[in-house]
Amino acid sequence: MKQKIMEASIHLFDENGFKSTSIKDIVDYIGVTKGTFYYYFPSKEELLRDIHIQYIDDLITKQEKILINSKINCTKKLYEIVYMLLKNIKVNKRSARIFIREIRHLSQTNHEIIRVKRNTFRDNIQQLLEDGITNGEMKKGCRADILTLGILGMTNWSYYWFNPNGEVSAKKLAEIYVDLILNGINKSKVPTRKPAKSPE
Amino acid sequence: MKQKIMEASIHLFDENGFKSTSIKDIVDYIGVTKGTFYYYFPSKEELLRDIHIQYIDDLITKQEKILINSKINCTKKLYEIVYMLLKNIKVNKRSARIFIREIRHLSQTNHEIIRVKRNTFRDNIQQLLEDGITNGEMKKGCRADILTLGILGMTNWSYYWFNPNGEVSAKKLAEIYVDLILNGINKSKVPTRKPAKSPE
Repeated sequence: MKQKIMEASIHLFDENGFKSTSIKDIVDYIGVTKGTFYYYFPSKEELLRDIHIQYIDDLITKQEKILINSKINCTKKLYEIVYMLLKNIKVNKRSARIFIREIRHLSQTNHEIIRVKRNTFRDNIQQLLEDGITNGEMKKGCRADILTLGILGMTNWSYYWFNPNGEVSAKKLAEIYVDLILNGINKSKVPTRKPAKSPE
Repeated sequence: MKQKIMEASIHLFDENGFKSTSIKDIVDYIGVTKGTFYYYFPSKEELLRDIHIQYIDDLITKQEKILINSKINCTKKLYEIVYMLLKNIKVNKRSARIFIREIRHLSQTNHEIIRVKRNTFRDNIQQLLEDGITNGEMKKGCRADILTLGILGMTNWSYYWFNPNGEVSAKKLAEIYVDLILNGINKSKVPTRKPAKSPE
């Protein structure tokens, strides 16, 4: 039931916004009483917090699984993380949009909990780029912090436009983005590395 | 007065969301009557439409001024557009966030008006990349459409994190992003293989 309430809320928050969705809207949508709601969540805001936590914890778990894989280099790990984020659009588009849009409605304490987790995800990418610079896969002098935000910008923005069932697959999109990140579009710089490929 | 109402609304919509802000909230904020509001806007939604139109028209005007400059090449134009978008954060951060978040509250007709303008802005960048590919500045085989969305992702996402008064200036950020877009972060420089191809 807890998961059912969360899924209904994700749908309603995405359609109408967090502020405009009442607990009554949520319980009416799934046909239960307010009592049921309060059994699982002390408030609408705690529910929003749980949606955020579930979303980011899932991404961090998937990300760390990629990062600890000692069989692949930093370039390949970067590709796998970008691909993981783009694949995630198909299953978690609504949660992602809530994650982007509604965090401002969390209390300061809850906001801080999410902020720390968001930062973990971001710092993991930054560390990966720094490792790539150190081991010579990537160019010296790169601003790993800024580039991380640029990479996250490209992937996060995809949640607004990317149709996973359209002409371009998540895999193809990941390849185009990672090729851009690695090699750029400048003619004078010819790519040297074979683009990352999924092991599947 | 029209501009004053728009500015107050931009502030309130950004703080509390479009749906949660009433016309009463807006007129109370600037100390005028509802009559004044309705003299300029038939409804709250028409006001939101005007905020959107003002925002995107301004960006298109600035963009087209760059594009018609025959003294600079495509690479430089790309840089100028990225820089223009990042500079814009300082002055129009709130409008930008409303533009990203609240478009779903426009009626179908108004949404369509904005969609056409958004597409113009996007298509102008895509055309620029295509021109760059044609004239040899950029690599053949690039997916100009997808790359455009990647570039817009990086710049648009900056509205969520970039502090124009922080350590990195808008100019420096534009330089880092355009260097990423043009040259990538890959260390190697010896040309060996062709750019990314989908395995599908």
